[in-house]
Amino acid sequence: MYFSELNSQDVHEQIHKTSIAILPIGAIEAHGAHLPLGTDNYLAEALAKRIVEKIPAWILPTVSYGQTWSLQDFPGSFHIPPQVLEEYLLAIVSSAAKNNFKLFVFINAHLGNHESIKQVQRKILALHPECRTLNLFYPDANKFSSQVLEQSRGHGNFFHADELETSYMLHLCPKHVAMEKAINENIEFPEDIDYRPVLWSEFSKTAVMGNATLATEEKGKFILDPVIQNMISIINKQIKDLSNKENK
Amino acid sequence: MYFSELNSQDVHEQIHKTSIAILPIGAIEAHGAHLPLGTDNYLAEALAKRIVEKIPAWILPTVSYGQTWSLQDFPGSFHIPPQVLEEYLLAIVSSAAKNNFKLFVFINAHLGNHESIKQVQRKILALHPECRTLNLFYPDANKFSSQVLEQSRGHGNFFHADELETSYMLHLCPKHVAMEKAINENIEFPEDIDYRPVLWSEFSKTAVMGNATLATEEKGKFILDPVIQNMISIINKQIKDLSNKENK
Amino acid sequence: MYFSELNSQDVHEQIHKTSIAILPIGAIEAHGAHLPLGTDNYLAEALAKRIVEKIPAWILPTVSYGQTWSLQDFPGSFHIPPQVLEEYLLAIVSSAAKNNFKLFVFINAHLGNHESIKQVQRKILALHPECRTLNLFYPDANKFSSQVLEQSRGHGNFFHADELETSYMLHLCPKHVAMEKAINENIEFPEDIDYRPVLWSEFSKTAVMGNATLATEEKGKFILDPVIQNMISIINKQIKDLSNKENK
Amino acid sequence: MYFSELNSQDVHEQIHKTSIAILPIGAIEAHGAHLPLGTDNYLAEALAKRIVEKIPAWILPTVSYGQTWSLQDFPGSFHIPPQVLEEYLLAIVSSAAKNNFKLFVFINAHLGNHESIKQVQRKILALHPECRTLNLFYPDANKFSSQVLEQSRGHGNFFHADELETSYMLHLCPKHVAMEKAINENIEFPEDIDYRPVLWSEFSKTAVMGNATLATEEKGKFILDPVIQNMISIINKQIKDLSNKENK
Amino acid sequence: MYFSELNSQDVHEQIHKTSIAILPIGAIEAHGAHLPLGTDNYLAEALAKRIVEKIPAWILPTVSYGQTWSLQDFPGSFHIPPQVLEEYLLAIVSSAAKNNFKLFVFINAHLGNHESIKQVQRKILALHPECRTLNLFYPDANKFSSQVLEQSRGHGNFFHADELETSYMLHLCPKHVAMEKAINENIEFPEDIDYRPVLWSEFSKTAVMGNATLATEEKGKFILDPVIQNMISIINKQIKDLSNKENK
Amino acid sequence: MYFSELNSQDVHEQIHKTSIAILPIGAIEAHGAHLPLGTDNYLAEALAKRIVEKIPAWILPTVSYGQTWSLQDFPGSFHIPPQVLEEYLLAIVSSAAKNNFKLFVFINAHLGNHESIKQVQRKILALHPECRTLNLFYPDANKFSSQVLEQSRGHGNFFHADELETSYMLHLCPKHVAMEKAINENIEFPEDIDYRPVLWSEFSKTAVMGNATLATEEKGKFILDPVIQNMISIINKQIKDLSNKENK
Repeated sequence: MYFSELNSQDVHEQIHKTSIAILPIGAIEAHGAHLPLGTDNYLAEALAKRIVEKIPAWILPTVSYGQTWSLQDFPGSFHIPPQVLEEYLLAIVSSAAKNNFKLFVFINAHLGNHESIKQVQRKILALHPECRTLNLFYPDANKFSSQVLEQSRGHGNFFHADELETSYMLHLCPKHVAMEKAINENIEFPEDIDYRPVLWSEFSKTAVMGNATLATEEKGKFILDPVIQNMISIINKQIKDLSNKENK
Repeated sequence: MYFSELNSQDVHEQIHKTSIAILPIGAIEAHGAHLPLGTDNYLAEALAKRIVEKIPAWILPTVSYGQTWSLQDFPGSFHIPPQVLEEYLLAIVSSAAKNNFKLFVFINAHLGNHESIKQVQRKILALHPECRTLNLFYPDANKFSSQVLEQSRGHGNFFHADELETSYMLHLCPKHVAMEKAINENIEFPEDIDYRPVLWSEFSKTAVMGNATLATEEKGKFILDPVIQNMISIINKQIKDLSNKENK
Repeated sequence: MYFSELNSQDVHEQIHKTSIAILPIGAIEAHGAHLPLGTDNYLAEALAKRIVEKIPAWILPTVSYGQTWSLQDFPGSFHIPPQVLEEYLLAIVSSAAKNNFKLFVFINAHLGNHESIKQVQRKILALHPECRTLNLFYPDANKFSSQVLEQSRGHGNFFHADELETSYMLHLCPKHVAMEKAINENIEFPEDIDYRPVLWSEFSKTAVMGNATLATEEKGKFILDPVIQNMISIINKQIKDLSNKENK
Repeated sequence: MYFSELNSQDVHEQIHKTSIAILPIGAIEAHGAHLPLGTDNYLAEALAKRIVEKIPAWILPTVSYGQTWSLQDFPGSFHIPPQVLEEYLLAIVSSAAKNNFKLFVFINAHLGNHESIKQVQRKILALHPECRTLNLFYPDANKFSSQVLEQSRGHGNFFHADELETSYMLHLCPKHVAMEKAINENIEFPEDIDYRPVLWSEFSKTAVMGNATLATEEKGKFILDPVIQNMISIINKQIKDLSNKENK
Repeated sequence: MYFSELNSQDVHEQIHKTSIAILPIGAIEAHGAHLPLGTDNYLAEALAKRIVEKIPAWILPTVSYGQTWSLQDFPGSFHIPPQVLEEYLLAIVSSAAKNNFKLFVFINAHLGNHESIKQVQRKILALHPECRTLNLFYPDANKFSSQVLEQSRGHGNFFHADELETSYMLHLCPKHVAMEKAINENIEFPEDIDYRPVLWSEFSKTAVMGNATLATEEKGKFILDPVIQNMISIINKQIKDLSNKENK
Repeated sequence: MYFSELNSQDVHEQIHKTSIAILPIGAIEAHGAHLPLGTDNYLAEALAKRIVEKIPAWILPTVSYGQTWSLQDFPGSFHIPPQVLEEYLLAIVSSAAKNNFKLFVFINAHLGNHESIKQVQRKILALHPECRTLNLFYPDANKFSSQVLEQSRGHGNFFHADELETSYMLHLCPKHVAMEKAINENIEFPEDIDYRPVLWSEFSKTAVMGNATLATEEKGKFILDPVIQNMISIINKQIKDLSNKENK
């Protein structure tokens, strides 16, 4: 169900039946030596694929370049300033709304994109109130990861190329993981990282935020199965709301 | 040689050896019933792949949403305003330059992106003069297409879902072509199309600009083989220039 | 130690001794019937005052209008779009940097301003790397509020005119609280509030997010005493770093 | 009658009775050694207070940072570029209009803000024609100051920390004046100051534009009493017009 | 001495000898029935011509479209928003600076352009400090017009298609004046015109701001002869300053 | 029929009869030693004049500064960035539309302006669909120039100060041509000029792109007579369309 593979006539005929668009969005960003630069895109795409197995929706082409301010000076990172990313995404969702999509779902696998997406959602609400948007970044993953991760994360909000994200990759995109290169980087987040602007090169040499060697496919599955189920439930709730609204 | 598959350490070690980045760029745009919405992206990606068979370069993730003003009201088209596209591309090339890429090649398969790319090239020349850029849109295709196309194109600059582009797809991405849905749309371009702003829905119902049924894989190959060879030569010339410069 | 009360000659003479600027920032926003529209500004100003009792710094005039998208349609709310707020703050911090301030501290009492401040911090790091910035929004308050609040908060990130914020006001600005008007609004946050853009008028009539009648001055003090101590420690650490740097 | 002290419910109930907003606006700017950096804000606030003694209106929180290009390189000056100030003020007045204010009065005590306010007024006229705006900068003060000032001003449009402004301060905010530090700076405005861009540091060392020692509280009162009366009359005329319009 | 008539080689050879650029700037704006829409441009061009009779300078092509907010709804007026005008002028002066002009003189005959020019001057001072700019709008005309005009102007700052401007035209561009259509429009400026945004159509039907029938060529000459002499002196002073600077 | 010479009353009365606006637009740009900097403006103005001999239309004042990126570093060139030019032109056409012009014709004599004009046309179609626009740059000149030029042009799209443009000038503005300074510059366009950003100073010393000595008035007339006839036909077709639409 890739939108790219459809043709214009299909869209014309089917948009009323399946008016849900799913946009995978990630980043090109350093993830150490054991995970590729495209990690966040691979994850977003794999999640999207899992979702459309259960929900009739079209997957739009991935937005592959995201906001990577914090890791911008690691080799291989590409950074899109948040305002630029916001404008680009706004044009995409506006086009989707003009194409009569009633629900637009961001499957975001890169935290750095969060605020740009949120701003786009607010603007779309004003510009196209008939088009709902969802911004899904591993909803409720913390609830499950806390049960299974061996290493406590160094920082509540961040995870990057560590036990958690590597487990995600082992579960969803194993062929892109080189576990033999996984390392345990002893990270000490600056205690004031939440208060001042910190480039991660200040406290990390590899962009691996912890002990990646602890990652396993099982942990990834343990966390992602319910997370994906959450995503599906959140989307289904919107579909139900939309359907109720139409029937009124 | 996909950049997404590399890891940060690879980039750090190899950027000096292979410092050529290739960016496929296309659009999501109506292409009739026989070609998919992602046609221009598929073509750009296929061309990029053919190029890296001969040139040591890294293919960046595709920029899949482009400027489609003219076809914006056909079902399935997504439109990025040119200024927005320009800013997004500028951020990408700037990041490439900071990553020490010395040559950045746009493989563009959608004419509507041309001006945004051109503006980006000019700005990069000022911002990162050490990073060369190339903007390749089927270089010199006219020379070869005029020898083999049966239908003369309705308009010198435009081709879209017609004998030419369908032949390209039959050669490069045959699995995405549904020739049984190909039609012969009798297009009459408004005679003043070069002088006033014309939405193509004004003169076409299907976005097929001519007789797509005439397309063959052979025609695609006949035209694209030398076009791809041209691309390679143009890139090689830059590599040689860069190498001369370094040796001085 | 209000900067507004100083004169130009003082600044010239003393900037090298006391080069810390403190900017209170809040919002004009509906806070129910028992708290005033200026609640966030009063809180920011009171916190700033407590800080300069311990740290030699100058308090800049309050930025009183903030980003209030979520509550913009409650009577009395004034909304500054985040991009506009960012530009205004950037000009202020740039001016501070040109005035040789070496440390610029945002005392933010309104969550809606957080992202704009964060973007400003990142831009200042590039433009004026010699000027450090801090973004302090009740650091680590959760640790203490969880010990003393009777009502669990409806949503992890938000608190607004509820037991918590009213307790803050009772402790810091009691004359601005009308406890006789405090109510217990039974709030049910939409379960998808983290995923789609939600105007709070959708689920609240008063902008009171919970049971404000539970608020007491003691709870406010219990939480804010260590929070303010945190602020002071965070600032002192920067001062020490700066001093170390200078002595090298 | 400070808007910050009101609560949301008050606004809801009273906005129809008292729909006049008053915004004091000034700057943080060098004013010599005898007047503080916040001089223009103190003046704007004091004027606003005098006005609401006679007119039922709400005073909004002061916008304390203004456009100070000319004095930007004196210690203590903070400069907001005019375009940035304009956007910030536009957001404030737009919010006021959405809150059903029918009359929005800028009490401006800093000439450098004049153009930004004027542009905002023009934009609001187009965006919210139902909301009137007034831009009051010491209306008709020249008529009265010419009768009482001993030193003729060096330049028709400018006054700064001189006999005039110091007298204003002595009358409205005497506790912020340190007359013992007042000086007589012999200023020679460049004869071409009206034609080319001149930073005032080019011709002044202290930012005192004349003989501040001549200032007296009486002069301040002599000028400001009728100026404030003017402000009140101008506002009352708008109220009358609005009332006439409503009664039609 | 029109810059348009020079060729590139001339510029190359002579720019060091005559490095003064003069830019006439006006507007397309309603001026009643007796004066043409291009009045301000004709005046600016005529003034420029008079200046280069005495000063070796090059006249650049006129910027013919200006900021006409106040008269925008009279037939024939073209309005350029001030920010847009500013950007356009900034590009022109930047180009002049890159061409090694050392002095750039705006000969402005339309008050509405004043602020945009002023902002450009400030920006050029920062970007190209080696290039001086002058903004000349009938310098000191008031001194002379007050001696000869029969009708006192309704408003201190404004004159438009009235005795004064018509006299200017009779002196400088008589062939563009149709005195037989000149009228005496009895204008009453709104008393609050300085405080709120007023479109002039609110108080005028013809855009003639007074008694144009009183205009004579003699009055025009009486005022403009010394005004032009002022312009020349102001320019000469800059030339002298530049020459002193170079000789150091 | 110069719009500048009309008065406001004329416009009011006649706009319904003659609602066609013609805007000459060119550039200030180096054109060798034999052609002046204003060449493109002179040509645009002369073409406009020829058109209004046959069509009842008003010629607006020339926009004299254009986008000259490629030749920006030749002495005498003035460059307006494309985005800035676009905004300026957009304001002009918007004003024309508000003045009830139904057809707006750009007579462009400088290729570098083409894209900005095209973007303006697209925006006007959305903002003022009732106002048609035309973008005329020597329509179909190639058809005729190929018959008469002796030197084949070095590059399909470009002509500049060469046999062709000099012949245009000899025919339309002979007094501005200094044939005795015409040269034959042997230009070799870089073979990759279509693919990378090339400043023309890289391959030319004079900005003369070929053999200007071959130019004759006859060649100019041979090409321009039918080109001008084309322009008139294109305009007349729009007039007819508009008239048909009105009669419906």
